Amino acid sequence: MTDFRFELLAEDGPARRGRIFTAFGTIETPAFMPVGTAATVKAMTNEMVEATGAEIILGNTYHLMLRPGAERIGRLGGLHRFMGWQKPILTDSGGFQVMSLAERRKLTERGVVFSSHLDGSRHELTPERSVEIQHLLDATVTMVLDECIALPAPPREVARAMELSLRWAERSKRAFVRRAGYGLFGIVQGGTDPELRRRSAEGLVEIGFDGYAVGGLAVGEPQELMFATLEATCPLLPAGRPRYLMGVGKPADIVGAVARGIDMFDCVLPTRSGRTGQAFTRRGPVNLKNARHADDPRPLDETSDCPAARDYSRAYLHHLVRSGEILGAVLLTWNNLWYYQDLMRNLRTAIAAGRLAEFVARFEAEQAMGDLEPWSG
Amino acid sequence: MTDFRFELLAEDGPARRGRIFTAFGTIETPAFMPVGTAATVKAMTNEMVEATGAEIILGNTYHLMLRPGAERIGRLGGLHRFMGWQKPILTDSGGFQVMSLAERRKLTERGVVFSSHLDGSRHELTPERSVEIQHLLDATVTMVLDECIALPAPPREVARAMELSLRWAERSKRAFVRRAGYGLFGIVQGGTDPELRRRSAEGLVEIGFDGYAVGGLAVGEPQELMFATLEATCPLLPAGRPRYLMGVGKPADIVGAVARGIDMFDCVLPTRSGRTGQAFTRRGPVNLKNARHADDPRPLDETSDCPAARDYSRAYLHHLVRSGEILGAVLLTWNNLWYYQDLMRNLRTAIAAGRLAEFVARFEAEQAMGDLEPWSG
Repeated sequence: MTDFRFELLAEDGPARRGRIFTAFGTIETPAFMPVGTAATVKAMTNEMVEATGAEIILGNTYHLMLRPGAERIGRLGGLHRFMGWQKPILTDSGGFQVMSLAERRKLTERGVVFSSHLDGSRHELTPERSVEIQHLLDATVTMVLDECIALPAPPREVARAMELSLRWAERSKRAFVRRAGYGLFGIVQGGTDPELRRRSAEGLVEIGFDGYAVGGLAVGEPQELMFATLEATCPLLPAGRPRYLMGVGKPADIVGAVARGIDMFDCVLPTRSGRTGQAFTRRGPVNLKNARHADDPRPLDETSDCPAARDYSRAYLHHLVRSGEILGAVLLTWNNLWYYQDLMRNLRTAIAAGRLAEFVARFEAEQAMGDLEPWSG
Repeated sequence: MTDFRFELLAEDGPARRGRIFTAFGTIETPAFMPVGTAATVKAMTNEMVEATGAEIILGNTYHLMLRPGAERIGRLGGLHRFMGWQKPILTDSGGFQVMSLAERRKLTERGVVFSSHLDGSRHELTPERSVEIQHLLDATVTMVLDECIALPAPPREVARAMELSLRWAERSKRAFVRRAGYGLFGIVQGGTDPELRRRSAEGLVEIGFDGYAVGGLAVGEPQELMFATLEATCPLLPAGRPRYLMGVGKPADIVGAVARGIDMFDCVLPTRSGRTGQAFTRRGPVNLKNARHADDPRPLDETSDCPAARDYSRAYLHHLVRSGEILGAVLLTWNNLWYYQDLMRNLRTAIAAGRLAEFVARFEAEQAMGDLEPWSG
């Protein structure tokens, strides 16, 4: 069996071009993971997700433990088999969604007890139970349970949550059943305080993980604060392990984070926006609901290899979105995931060639151009 | 250019195996047309529809004239180009939906004036305007406008509507711009009265059409009454023209209608049921919402070539449907359309081999078996 490991192939400043080896195949990094919350990347077939070039997707422990249930997925052979996705899957710990979605939460040293947002049923999530659920799901990468506090928060609160998360990380490590080609990631917390981030990172490295995530960012703070936190945190993490920035982000966030040494990303943005009429393109976001597209025979981006971007007129996409047709969500989600994977491909090529700065300049210039002029017939 | 024509390849009793030649390619009959109401077969990509074997789809004039508008689709190159479907498209006349969806209708000899169910805007549909709209849509097959009355209705009402429809059929014929490979179909009306059906059929044949539809059925009448009407009507229609039973139907309706001489069908059932958790299978309908499927690792039908029927567990499909995931609608719609096309393929093979009775007996036996026993683990 393949060991779970990270190979650093090239560097360009702090930016890294790498490869993760797993029991379910390799992942070229920097990598973007489409979010498959409830055992499906919303509005996509697996074939469509694969066609974009995605090599790993994310599943949400919180959603899956409530419906259809972790033990059930375990009996059915794990998440890969359940949903028919054979490449790697990373699952989160459930902690973030418990804090954002669940009701009547009670947090103690032991873990968190909460009520399901679906039916009010009571559940407990401890570090051990989160790891056990992710084991039942057969996650390729398991994340430790951490406490995600809402920011801004008093420094003492941030420190307390970070320390608790460190103790939970240690319990997660003990609970994790090592298997060849499977990995366990720790999560650096500490808000935007460099000193707290340092203590968190050092504590996690001492425990020892297969990869390190940066959590607690992209929760509304300004982009420069996120970048500053990455600049303070990434150098503290071991070069031989992948680094994952959770829940990020917009294309410009990803480009900036890659330039600061991040290897992995996940975000609902491309899928969620695809269901509300927003398309990501080289020239920035396009709102297909806008009436300016109603008579426009041009595709979203004729230079794209994505069928959704290349083979349908903006007029047609506009019509589908306005009519609330499922195909509108399907095509725009496909376009968006493809755009994100194109971005990652371009970042990987640029880093390997030592031309990241050049790529970033072109990326920013194209995004700044904005969309095509309105169609004039 | 190919002429629009019908070739009768084989007969088995009244049942016919044929081929329709059009400007957009051939259609093997008996054929089922998936419904693509608003320029999309709901929840499907064109590739998925093609993979089922469908060779023609249906578009709804009423929906398209209101949104995005017939003139707009015309400017964008017609419906094939607009939606990216290159095979034949049949459009209805709009008459049926005006009667079932529109508001504040006023019917006169000239046509019908109505308000849009979308925004209340006033529109007029005359035989000439319906043909013009279908021309703008670039429909491969245009249907004449007819008056669809709600049944049951007094015999005098049924007769009046049938006579009006005949006069409208004549006006439609005059308005239709003949192009090589494009066809215009008349619609036999007259409720369930054989004498009215005879007068309607004879009147239409005298006007002369490229195909003949049987309208006004599948509106709630018992199946035997529909079959009796087909037995009275089909022999009155020219053997060298395709016969289309509008809005039908359940698998057993289609099998019975083919046995009585019908060549073409359309129905929202496979697509609509796919969005509400119902799957059609060889062994009858399966309701995936039912809790009996929650732990069932078996596919819907392991003998099917459809990925949706073969590659996913019932447990997964149940989960998707219960969670309201778009992929649930996608996979079940795909399964259902594939099942319908399998049924048509089997009917064509059986007729060609002179073994329709045998096929019908097996079809009925399989449907009567009902679904698999519940999974017992």
